[in-house]
Amino acid sequence: MESFLKKAKNASSIIATLDGATKNKVLNNMATALEQHQIYITTENKKDMENGKQNNLSSALIDRLFLDEKRIKGMAEAIRQIASLKDPVGKTHEGWVVENGMNIHKVSVPIGVIGIIYESRPNVTSDTAALCFKSGNICILKGGKEAQNSNQAIAKILQDVLLDHNLPKEAISLLPDSSREGVANLIKQDKYVDLIIPRGGEALIRFVSSNASVPVVKHDKGLCHTYIDQDANIQKALDVTFNAKCRRPGICGAMETLLIDKKIAKKVLPKIKEQFDKSGTILKGCSKTCKIIDIQKATKEDWDTEYLDNILSIKIMSNLDDAINHISKYGSGHSDAIITENYTTAEKFLNNIDSACVYLNASTQFTDGGEFGFGAEVGISTNKLHARGPMGINELTTYKFKIYGNGQTRK
Amino acid sequence: MESFLKKAKNASSIIATLDGATKNKVLNNMATALEQHQIYITTENKKDMENGKQNNLSSALIDRLFLDEKRIKGMAEAIRQIASLKDPVGKTHEGWVVENGMNIHKVSVPIGVIGIIYESRPNVTSDTAALCFKSGNICILKGGKEAQNSNQAIAKILQDVLLDHNLPKEAISLLPDSSREGVANLIKQDKYVDLIIPRGGEALIRFVSSNASVPVVKHDKGLCHTYIDQDANIQKALDVTFNAKCRRPGICGAMETLLIDKKIAKKVLPKIKEQFDKSGTILKGCSKTCKIIDIQKATKEDWDTEYLDNILSIKIMSNLDDAINHISKYGSGHSDAIITENYTTAEKFLNNIDSACVYLNASTQFTDGGEFGFGAEVGISTNKLHARGPMGINELTTYKFKIYGNGQTRK
Repeated sequence: MESFLKKAKNASSIIATLDGATKNKVLNNMATALEQHQIYITTENKKDMENGKQNNLSSALIDRLFLDEKRIKGMAEAIRQIASLKDPVGKTHEGWVVENGMNIHKVSVPIGVIGIIYESRPNVTSDTAALCFKSGNICILKGGKEAQNSNQAIAKILQDVLLDHNLPKEAISLLPDSSREGVANLIKQDKYVDLIIPRGGEALIRFVSSNASVPVVKHDKGLCHTYIDQDANIQKALDVTFNAKCRRPGICGAMETLLIDKKIAKKVLPKIKEQFDKSGTILKGCSKTCKIIDIQKATKEDWDTEYLDNILSIKIMSNLDDAINHISKYGSGHSDAIITENYTTAEKFLNNIDSACVYLNASTQFTDGGEFGFGAEVGISTNKLHARGPMGINELTTYKFKIYGNGQTRK
Repeated sequence: MESFLKKAKNASSIIATLDGATKNKVLNNMATALEQHQIYITTENKKDMENGKQNNLSSALIDRLFLDEKRIKGMAEAIRQIASLKDPVGKTHEGWVVENGMNIHKVSVPIGVIGIIYESRPNVTSDTAALCFKSGNICILKGGKEAQNSNQAIAKILQDVLLDHNLPKEAISLLPDSSREGVANLIKQDKYVDLIIPRGGEALIRFVSSNASVPVVKHDKGLCHTYIDQDANIQKALDVTFNAKCRRPGICGAMETLLIDKKIAKKVLPKIKEQFDKSGTILKGCSKTCKIIDIQKATKEDWDTEYLDNILSIKIMSNLDDAINHISKYGSGHSDAIITENYTTAEKFLNNIDSACVYLNASTQFTDGGEFGFGAEVGISTNKLHARGPMGINELTTYKFKIYGNGQTRK
């Protein structure tokens, strides 16, 4: 492990200082190489598919694993899209001159060596590798075991392109020991690794956060709320809540709990029920809600549950403060929304809810790097530090201070 | 512990949304209260001084502990200075409208609950409390045992001012259990604590980084270099290196190793020796250096040693790449400098050295929030993520996205 990490660290200084034209040329050649070697990729992918079927993976997981010409074409296009983004390295965030005449520039630089732990979809391998390369970082990838043949094929193709350009293949690596012990070892290597990004289930994220000495940017769960205020426009409330739940119930930005002000509950709830009955959504309500519409009764656990499914819990709130308190207690700090036409109410909600994304009159499902205009997305950070919410390519950089002097000495 | 942390977390939502005028009024009253209660403070401080003498603390440590009218006045002035800074909360970093018309604002917000672990000087207690309060954060302070009576007195005075303004006293707290077990417990409380800042020796920082599940921003060691290039202006080289070592040899931004290009070594080294002999600096050289000037021979360990003392190791370099490699291998990523008049050489050094602060023709001792114009300093981060280098009050904030819609739903 140590000799592998030393090579990665050494590769870092080469990749970090590549100019943008070189990086884009390499990325475009990587895209072409994936398309050219699609037979190799699909052959390796078939092994994963067969193993998956033997291991009784769910059909949803099998579908996420599957690669064909069209999906490989999509992976190549994603790399070309990343190549077309503005270079995130070398940007001057701020610059100023201090009293003694020194000129201080705060500039963006790559983070260094990044370990990324993820599951299932093999396209994450090429996406992540391209995002890290574009931002001058080395990536150490630990994909899911179920996709290991596909991931190895993809990494091999990308590494061959690096070698064609006389670049170190360690710039894009799969973690050699992909066992749990291998991961446990990686996250302790703060001498060589600068950042760990775990994307996956709660158990993985807890394990990494508790055991890492390397800094971690988590991609954790989303227990998202929408609060319909007494001054809501009813049509907007219906449109936005339906989208927030039903567009894709399984993503982390999906609404899990709907809060409604008691002053408009009688008016709104029957319409809510009518709308969600059409989509087959299972509704669970607090006791007050159940007096107005005939739905399942929610239990205490419901307020704490990220369903990631076509299920919605509903609770009636006395007022705005009640809603803020509920979200502060049960929310996961991911995405929460208010529906209101009242300016003061809206600003109080947006300022008091301590979440990465707070929405006024819009669906929580917009929490996504693409929707935010970031061009490509690393994921959605549930960290408060370094990167919060949708993480684009700029969040794969840090900064340093370049100080230009003329012989200055400190008094 | 849990009930204490719950109170801190609850206080967070109150302090985070205070307006700037209120925060400044409270801070100015805290400054006045420290001055008014100086007899109480010096009485408690005397207990620490006596304990320190009984425990044979060094005279340097005893001096750092000591408080008198003048030093208490200084603490009050530091709080007034922090009050005068621009509010770091609510700043719009960026704002843009996406295609569907949603208006996205990226705004600065407090981090939340911050645990700070530090040693010795009691003024850190009031400084840190004021910095956290100004930036809307809750602080949990764990000072050194040797200053516990002084720290308790200072915290009590600040808490009384909070209570006078009907604010929760938990906004400024000392960690109730200040034992090692108490610290070990605190750094695992990611449900309640958002950030840990350890300031102190390597053992403390290693313990915190390895055991925390809360994110950590380290204030670690500085093994700083200055490289005198062949195109250096000799007078600047002499002035800057003398300042970098001798102004205060014990700070983390002090130069520990001097690198000199072989092409000017014969010309520069005798002058270097003459200058550092005057200040009684112990010089240790590589074998090539020792052939030019008569100084102690350095061992392998010297290149790895942060002396924090009036000692300097000197090594001759074949060229710029040699210097970059030496610093990459032995440096701590804190502050490193080059002395040169050559533009291309300078930019290559500044871009290739992966340190928080890279200097051209200036002393590494400038790495300091005050010198950078930040007004007040939390410390000097040796993290790569979130905050790097001098940490001002802005680095005690994170951001969130406020998204203003008009009924938008995602396709």
